Amino acid sequence: MKFTEMLEARWRNQNTLLCVGLDPNRSRFPEELADSPNAIYDFCCGIVDATADLVCAFKPQIAYFASEGAEDALKRIIEYIHANHPGIPVILDAKRGDIGSTCEHYAREAFERFKADCVTLSPYMGEDTITPYLKYEEKGIFLLCRTSNKSGDELQMLDVGGERLFERVARLTAEKWNRTGELGLVVGATYPDELAAVRRVAPDIPLLVPGVGAQGGDIHAAVTAGMDTRGAGMVINSGRAILYASKGADWREAARQAAEATRDAINAARGA
Amino acid sequence: MKFTEMLEARWRNQNTLLCVGLDPNRSRFPEELADSPNAIYDFCCGIVDATADLVCAFKPQIAYFASEGAEDALKRIIEYIHANHPGIPVILDAKRGDIGSTCEHYAREAFERFKADCVTLSPYMGEDTITPYLKYEEKGIFLLCRTSNKSGDELQMLDVGGERLFERVARLTAEKWNRTGELGLVVGATYPDELAAVRRVAPDIPLLVPGVGAQGGDIHAAVTAGMDTRGAGMVINSGRAILYASKGADWREAARQAAEATRDAINAARGA
Repeated sequence: MKFTEMLEARWRNQNTLLCVGLDPNRSRFPEELADSPNAIYDFCCGIVDATADLVCAFKPQIAYFASEGAEDALKRIIEYIHANHPGIPVILDAKRGDIGSTCEHYAREAFERFKADCVTLSPYMGEDTITPYLKYEEKGIFLLCRTSNKSGDELQMLDVGGERLFERVARLTAEKWNRTGELGLVVGATYPDELAAVRRVAPDIPLLVPGVGAQGGDIHAAVTAGMDTRGAGMVINSGRAILYASKGADWREAARQAAEATRDAINAARGA
Repeated sequence: MKFTEMLEARWRNQNTLLCVGLDPNRSRFPEELADSPNAIYDFCCGIVDATADLVCAFKPQIAYFASEGAEDALKRIIEYIHANHPGIPVILDAKRGDIGSTCEHYAREAFERFKADCVTLSPYMGEDTITPYLKYEEKGIFLLCRTSNKSGDELQMLDVGGERLFERVARLTAEKWNRTGELGLVVGATYPDELAAVRRVAPDIPLLVPGVGAQGGDIHAAVTAGMDTRGAGMVINSGRAILYASKGADWREAARQAAEATRDAINAARGA
């Protein structure tokens, strides 16, 4: 099944634009997992089970696994999601960016080794970065466009012939690179005006929107600026605010409550 | 020891700007390794031993390991280089690009898990991408600047207020981001004019230059355009043309000969 069809089905049938980011940070794990040899796997699967019906996608961030040599746990977590919650797409947040045969190996990493449904990439090297991924016709790609961090301005806000660099990336994506119909853009929640600018250039493209929750983006402003004409088209990520809602025995329930509150705030803003 | 000091020592004492890229591709391995369970490790260490005295650095490309789940082999290969050829810096070609705590985890991956001396990064998210790496004061970073692929033009050649985007990246690196003195830039060998443009903006910054050998860049033009005033300042990478010089029993000697010929061609161009 195509990545965008999976997303569409979740938006419609589950009425949610929330994505839970799986960023496992041992120092913030619940106390009861302190001595578990499988803490990363147990924690992530616990969060997955507690929030699955509330999300349109899960987004594991590979850096948190790679720093620990926990690729095997990552693989098993994605298998767990596919087996136990079929239909929920998994976005591997990797922000890779390379070309040619190297890029083919990165695509194999994401889609064959880890069996992700979608991956995040950096656009700095142009269309060559995307091409090897497009052989996997059903898989999705979110390209970095306008990131939520302060120094994102240094390149992304530069004027390039009457538009800003991030708008050029959005336009190239919408008008040239999107050969499979499975491309999307990463646009931070912290800049609603720029979210709206991307939406104008790319009216039908899914937007992956980090920066709500722990990063402080305002949900109402982001949703109003970024939703498509159907009130969908967004994958709004929250990680830490949900994952680490409690360190106590109630960590699963606390995560669920935080996820539910975020989903509801998003839906209120959509008028859904 | 600082990354740049390791490089300087190799440039001076070994009289070489050659970097051998470790891009292990099983389908091109020597026949004698076809049935080896440790083929990636055995192949890379064989290449390392055959070429160590000819290089200023080794550059493993992590995608080739990640697609196979061979992170352990990568770790052991880097350990092997440090143990058996001390003083040769290892550049982990990863082209990561993220921010904040995610970026801290990527830095741990490169410098603590894999014990690389240097890493490649993408500049699209600005200085925030670099900051977490700078805590490792002795480690190097090569930022993507002007890449050798065709569609690199799409963003890198855009005019941004009188200079091109890749020149802006070079200028930000040379004038603002290089707080530890350990930053460098990736500039493809295929565009000597643009190599020269980067060298003008960043006269003292090491350049990592892929695109010679299998990628067809002209060595003489690249060296003339990119060397610093001392006739050094470049890390010129060749991968496939050296690694896969022979599939027969002479693969080590063939790799050595290809490396030696490349080093000599570089030195002839430097007038060294």
